[in-house]
Amino acid sequence: MGPDALTLTRTFHFSAGHRLVSPAVSEEENRTLYGPCFRPHGHNYLLEVTVGGQPDPHTGMAADLNALESAVRRAVLDLVDHRNLDADVPALTGIITTGENLAQAFWGMLSQALPAGVLRRVAVVETANNTFEYCGERSDGDAE
Amino acid sequence: MGPDALTLTRTFHFSAGHRLVSPAVSEEENRTLYGPCFRPHGHNYLLEVTVGGQPDPHTGMAADLNALESAVRRAVLDLVDHRNLDADVPALTGIITTGENLAQAFWGMLSQALPAGVLRRVAVVETANNTFEYCGERSDGDAE
Amino acid sequence: MGPDALTLTRTFHFSAGHRLVSPAVSEEENRTLYGPCFRPHGHNYLLEVTVGGQPDPHTGMAADLNALESAVRRAVLDLVDHRNLDADVPALTGIITTGENLAQAFWGMLSQALPAGVLRRVAVVETANNTFEYCGERSDGDAE
Amino acid sequence: MGPDALTLTRTFHFSAGHRLVSPAVSEEENRTLYGPCFRPHGHNYLLEVTVGGQPDPHTGMAADLNALESAVRRAVLDLVDHRNLDADVPALTGIITTGENLAQAFWGMLSQALPAGVLRRVAVVETANNTFEYCGERSDGDAE
Amino acid sequence: MGPDALTLTRTFHFSAGHRLVSPAVSEEENRTLYGPCFRPHGHNYLLEVTVGGQPDPHTGMAADLNALESAVRRAVLDLVDHRNLDADVPALTGIITTGENLAQAFWGMLSQALPAGVLRRVAVVETANNTFEYCGERSDGDAE
Amino acid sequence: MGPDALTLTRTFHFSAGHRLVSPAVSEEENRTLYGPCFRPHGHNYLLEVTVGGQPDPHTGMAADLNALESAVRRAVLDLVDHRNLDADVPALTGIITTGENLAQAFWGMLSQALPAGVLRRVAVVETANNTFEYCGERSDGDAE
Repeated sequence: MGPDALTLTRTFHFSAGHRLVSPAVSEEENRTLYGPCFRPHGHNYLLEVTVGGQPDPHTGMAADLNALESAVRRAVLDLVDHRNLDADVPALTGIITTGENLAQAFWGMLSQALPAGVLRRVAVVETANNTFEYCGERSDGDAE
Repeated sequence: MGPDALTLTRTFHFSAGHRLVSPAVSEEENRTLYGPCFRPHGHNYLLEVTVGGQPDPHTGMAADLNALESAVRRAVLDLVDHRNLDADVPALTGIITTGENLAQAFWGMLSQALPAGVLRRVAVVETANNTFEYCGERSDGDAE
Repeated sequence: MGPDALTLTRTFHFSAGHRLVSPAVSEEENRTLYGPCFRPHGHNYLLEVTVGGQPDPHTGMAADLNALESAVRRAVLDLVDHRNLDADVPALTGIITTGENLAQAFWGMLSQALPAGVLRRVAVVETANNTFEYCGERSDGDAE
Repeated sequence: MGPDALTLTRTFHFSAGHRLVSPAVSEEENRTLYGPCFRPHGHNYLLEVTVGGQPDPHTGMAADLNALESAVRRAVLDLVDHRNLDADVPALTGIITTGENLAQAFWGMLSQALPAGVLRRVAVVETANNTFEYCGERSDGDAE
Repeated sequence: MGPDALTLTRTFHFSAGHRLVSPAVSEEENRTLYGPCFRPHGHNYLLEVTVGGQPDPHTGMAADLNALESAVRRAVLDLVDHRNLDADVPALTGIITTGENLAQAFWGMLSQALPAGVLRRVAVVETANNTFEYCGERSDGDAE
Repeated sequence: MGPDALTLTRTFHFSAGHRLVSPAVSEEENRTLYGPCFRPHGHNYLLEVTVGGQPDPHTGMAADLNALESAVRRAVLDLVDHRNLDADVPALTGIITTGENLAQAFWGMLSQALPAGVLRRVAVVETANNTFEYCGERSDGDAE
């Protein structure tokens, strides 16, 4: 059995404002590129965090859910919930806040906040019809 | 059988940014009053529109769904979808964009766009856990 | 406390094929009237059945859920599930199978199958965005 | 416009264990009466609380959501969440924990914890297919 | 980081009629094999389309959502939505319209309509309880 | 095309009571370790069972859904639905009933009940926010 056989996914909610603007192109081109998403708006986002591990035989748990909860809250939710993602989140400065970029940014923020090697997948659900998933390289915790 | 025996509810989606700020109180009091909702953020809103009527015996329909769809789109969705509700929607100028106020404002906008007397209920679902419903007085169409 | 203070709603699922065709108008007019719904298609329908009553002090139940379940199954679901509503359901013969007409037809079928006066509301959810509700007159069971 | 024109519904979650047992009948009769619900099991319940009111012109809010949240938490959720409803909830002693009885009991607990006359409806969603709603009499707050 | 690290899934809806019939066996055997699905019925299908890619540094997008949307609409939805899958969809001629076969057929239709090598997964959700997923071989776009 | 290209996921529901208690530690430590989950409570669980295979050209089905349904029912649901997982399910004796352990236990129970080599994934959804997935080694059916 490989180390990924068992995973646990926890879903979090946050509400945030954003718009899509590329500094590389003109306002006119931004309007064409992003359509209505160029206008300031917002979403009820879901953030799904998947971690892998073996259940501890003494507890039956592969991850300390309380520790996971507080790490995600501290590393991501406290920074983005009820914020304007483009203006009020220093960790996202200079990032176009597409779902793709958010998934990668949250992976980076979470992989530092969680024990090495446990993070498997980050999904950002922007609307019921659009989900962005990122499965980065595992950190060295796995290499041990 | 009363005229309300049969109703039809159609659900629409829009994504918008907003924040709660009362001009009547100080920034400090706003922060206390609205908590995180004082900060700019946003939502994937659902708008539920309920109309009543008798099915036309020739069509089996109590309302022309296409006409309903285009009235809601023209009267509300085109104005609010992918917008900042506080800055970019003239119809909401001067309104604190709570769910309560949005439900009442959308009722007003819809009751003018729909045939007299058909509107029964407007619901604004701000998040999966918060729904605001408004059932105003019927317009004079009913008085006939 | 009125007799309607307490209600119980049970949700059922069925999958059925249908199309909208009015015998009163030409094929061309049908196409205009119903748009894509004029073409044969189908849905995963939800049927919500609401009954009212007072909890029996000995059982804590306002309705016998098993009896309700089997009445709905026998009176409606067995007739419509995995059927073509327009061709294979005798109880719907001559009915244009709009959500409005289905809600009224199911009310009729259910009010005969359930104890007099308990039925409060029938809702037909055709898609996640379209719900049709019917609250007919109570049968004489209530008049006692 | 009547006092009920505007309502706000907030949804809460709790997970609890229970079983249905009537002290009025034998074990054999209980088994027949309740079927599998006679065996100890549990649910992820939803509790929907609807309150009515007029939006305060200074705040745009018909109810103080924080006060509502903490009243529901204190009056119901803290008592029932992650509990055995039949053994560990003094407020439910002697009550057969059907959805009907829970809806009525929660109405009683909430109408005392909330401002007089604001409570409109309590719904207990036991599973995705079974919802129990109670709309009791309004307390004297309305009589004023 | 491999090319699959980032994926984007977009969900589409369509309503269609169908039935399961195998030309290889008798009517009696079809009835046994498919049970109620042998009878004409229909579904609200979900079609989930997953594509992979790297976010473009200038736009933050791994795929042009508008192009994806119109490709899926043209290649699949326009052909199947509000249709009888067995009679009115030339692209499905000769195919038993099980979820398995639909997922494979849609993969084929989509892999031609989308840029080479971007399609990762097609899922057909027939009902809330039945999902069929297909992850075919990548087209030669990847082989470059 | 590998043997996993096509999968089918079927979702089942069961309601059960449980609590988390580790025999390895004191009551005080259990309370700290599991928090509210140490108290007897319960859930509406979802069980997702994913199987892989190639569609049979004569039937278009990769798995006999009826056989799958009855295998899952016999091997898991009949044992756990409307039960106390800690006291009334012999197959779970000695197991701390965390989602992790349930997913692994159900995998074991299902891999014996299903044809060799078809089981791909078992997911236990404890609440809308917590999902546990297990993808064990394939049984020898695949080794052929």
